[in-house]
Amino acid sequence: MTKAVEKVIEEFEKLPGVGPKSAARMAYHYLRSPNKDASALAEALIEMDQKVVFCQKCFNVSETSECEICSTPLRDSHKICIVEEPLDVVAFEKAGIFNGLYFVLGGVISPADGIGPEELRMAQMTRRINQLYEEHKQLEVIIATNPSLEGEATASFIHEAIRNISDDIQVTRLAMGLPTGADLEYADRTTLLRALEGRRAV
Amino acid sequence: MTKAVEKVIEEFEKLPGVGPKSAARMAYHYLRSPNKDASALAEALIEMDQKVVFCQKCFNVSETSECEICSTPLRDSHKICIVEEPLDVVAFEKAGIFNGLYFVLGGVISPADGIGPEELRMAQMTRRINQLYEEHKQLEVIIATNPSLEGEATASFIHEAIRNISDDIQVTRLAMGLPTGADLEYADRTTLLRALEGRRAV
Repeated sequence: MTKAVEKVIEEFEKLPGVGPKSAARMAYHYLRSPNKDASALAEALIEMDQKVVFCQKCFNVSETSECEICSTPLRDSHKICIVEEPLDVVAFEKAGIFNGLYFVLGGVISPADGIGPEELRMAQMTRRINQLYEEHKQLEVIIATNPSLEGEATASFIHEAIRNISDDIQVTRLAMGLPTGADLEYADRTTLLRALEGRRAV
Repeated sequence: MTKAVEKVIEEFEKLPGVGPKSAARMAYHYLRSPNKDASALAEALIEMDQKVVFCQKCFNVSETSECEICSTPLRDSHKICIVEEPLDVVAFEKAGIFNGLYFVLGGVISPADGIGPEELRMAQMTRRINQLYEEHKQLEVIIATNPSLEGEATASFIHEAIRNISDDIQVTRLAMGLPTGADLEYADRTTLLRALEGRRAV
């Protein structure tokens, strides 16, 4: 194995979900055929590095200082959805079910990983919520962190922060329960508990 | 999702074993923290593109026109091992069990994928074997293609090609049977058959 190949393998290994074997397979993939793909990926990465910035309002990835969602008047700015990562925005947008604004926290509170509220964009979030509330005097904040331990803790923290702005801001959390197509038999205890707690009249 | 990010996702998707979701996760991995890693991978890819060539003798990847294995007098040039891919050489070298030379075919015969003997380095292989045989008048060729349908067909083809050079060249094939740590109970029929056929006196 040459040093140049080893270096590529090393970089691939840093990617999420990529182990040493997959990383090697990825690197050698480019060494099989005329290696044009390698430079295509390299160029795409460099372009991303140069062009992509964080939107100043929602901190989603963007190619302009204010992203498309924050800059269009077509979105309902009376609703803002707080998510962990840019990919969560992608999920919502693909579903086409939400017409409000977003705010990307940049992770969750996770003491085990040394991530406290200071490591996230909590201050920016508070500022953004405050600004939208001052503007409209009516606002719903939808907390859409993941239904994990860390996500729940972060949700509580966000709730607390919003309460400090105003009690008039409506705070909601995504519903928890059985996902579509799930098999009740295989549902874990917490999911079943949440599904039962959240049951609705039919 | 911005266009620059989409392009990176597209390129990641071309890698073996990477689906759309993993590709997205990989691209966004670089957008979480200060994005220095993206350019590190880009640089590593470009360096690989520029530095890595194929060894003129064995067609393994190399940073010199003749690779380290082919250029050292420490290797036993009376033995040559024919493999499909550069990663197979890595596997042998990591195991440290073979001191001969290699030849990298660049794949296997696979009519379904439109890969015939002409798409592989069969001519170069014949030339290399011929040259080593002329030099030493004693040579063992170890056919180490994978124990798959295509690998077996390619092995037969290689065997045939060597017979056309000389009947005095010793041709061997890697043994097939149960892998270390395997559970007989879960072994497939072909593996069991090969293990039985290849049984040895103890």
